[in-house]
Amino acid sequence: MKILGLDSSGLVAGVAVVEDDVLLAEYTTDYKKTHSQTLLPMLEELRGMIELDMNTLDAIAVASGPGSFTGLRIGSATAKGLGLALKKPLVEVPTLEGLAYNLWGTSKLVCPLMDARRNQVYTAAYEFVPEGESFRLRSVISQMPEDIAEMLKKLNELGREVIFLGDGVPVYLELIRKLTKVPYSLAPAHANRQRAACIAALGAVYFAEGRTVAAADHRPEYLRKSQAEREEES
Amino acid sequence: MKILGLDSSGLVAGVAVVEDDVLLAEYTTDYKKTHSQTLLPMLEELRGMIELDMNTLDAIAVASGPGSFTGLRIGSATAKGLGLALKKPLVEVPTLEGLAYNLWGTSKLVCPLMDARRNQVYTAAYEFVPEGESFRLRSVISQMPEDIAEMLKKLNELGREVIFLGDGVPVYLELIRKLTKVPYSLAPAHANRQRAACIAALGAVYFAEGRTVAAADHRPEYLRKSQAEREEES
Repeated sequence: MKILGLDSSGLVAGVAVVEDDVLLAEYTTDYKKTHSQTLLPMLEELRGMIELDMNTLDAIAVASGPGSFTGLRIGSATAKGLGLALKKPLVEVPTLEGLAYNLWGTSKLVCPLMDARRNQVYTAAYEFVPEGESFRLRSVISQMPEDIAEMLKKLNELGREVIFLGDGVPVYLELIRKLTKVPYSLAPAHANRQRAACIAALGAVYFAEGRTVAAADHRPEYLRKSQAEREEES
Repeated sequence: MKILGLDSSGLVAGVAVVEDDVLLAEYTTDYKKTHSQTLLPMLEELRGMIELDMNTLDAIAVASGPGSFTGLRIGSATAKGLGLALKKPLVEVPTLEGLAYNLWGTSKLVCPLMDARRNQVYTAAYEFVPEGESFRLRSVISQMPEDIAEMLKKLNELGREVIFLGDGVPVYLELIRKLTKVPYSLAPAHANRQRAACIAALGAVYFAEGRTVAAADHRPEYLRKSQAEREEES
């Protein structure tokens, strides 16, 4: 099984190809360029380097949100375009699940924090439960936009050791330090941001379970309305 | 602090740049091309994409062995060349420590297995112990070339749950399944091979502790003699 993974939900742009249990290639940047300048050139670079025949892909997994509106749209448009052209199904991997998958194998609670501005984060809490020779990601608190202080309160109530990761960590570090009453740690650089390899690896799990969508039917999950929509309503 | 990480110790060729707690960029391939064809072009591609001024690096971290003799020499030669030209120190990160760092945050024992042919593996066992807001990698069984069955016996004696990773896993999977008596799991695609981001992130920890070497003094750690040397002795 060969899966292409794409993630442009946040500041990171990433492409990766996973074949069965092997990461064939991954290219990640976390830089000020816009994803419309980086994502496709990175895919083309990687495709050439590993001489990838795109027709041999089984599916295209994409970080399906939440995240930056523009970033999600670039990722989704790319995945849809590839899926339609190659006649391949898409696998939607929720961004927060992909982020949490960085910490596969921990027995602690995993809490991804994506900055959504104005003290809000896109967040959730996950745990890894044994399944055969691997671990399965399981949701403990469902994904939602939440006030950072409220989320920390919920984690305190759960009473379990927790690992924080995501671009919300540096933004709300002071609050995390002040309000977190359970033992916690902060994931290091190689495991604390979006990775297309996580999207591809988790996408492979979901693909095997038949969780695919047709390219034409895919829509990103924004979790809340855009600023323009909010302004129109008010 | 900005660290360039290089890993070409096995089938994987990887380059990554970590700045403080952020992975600025990573490029990984696990493909049949020789590392002399891939490593420098990948670095050049990544350098261009994030407009990296190599003079702003604090150090160059390199997977220092064990591993493939040719792969290690290519990685070391590249790191030494860059270090000499840029007048930057090197940080030697043992390959097996870099591999294990994939599983940062687990409370299980981590056992990297690199295939060394003829039922031998380069192996070690590590655990992660809390340190401040992070975890520190600690050696439980020191790195060595070992018979795979002997290593599994040692792990059984330790009696702790273990996660296996590395290119030795598919090679010795039957033996792992037959001989492992403790609960075990196998790391998935995004976390089961060498990553330059792990070398850079762990290299940053070691750099902060002053564990650098001058480029001229760096030598890879082969852990055992090459086939040519063994044949000459016999």
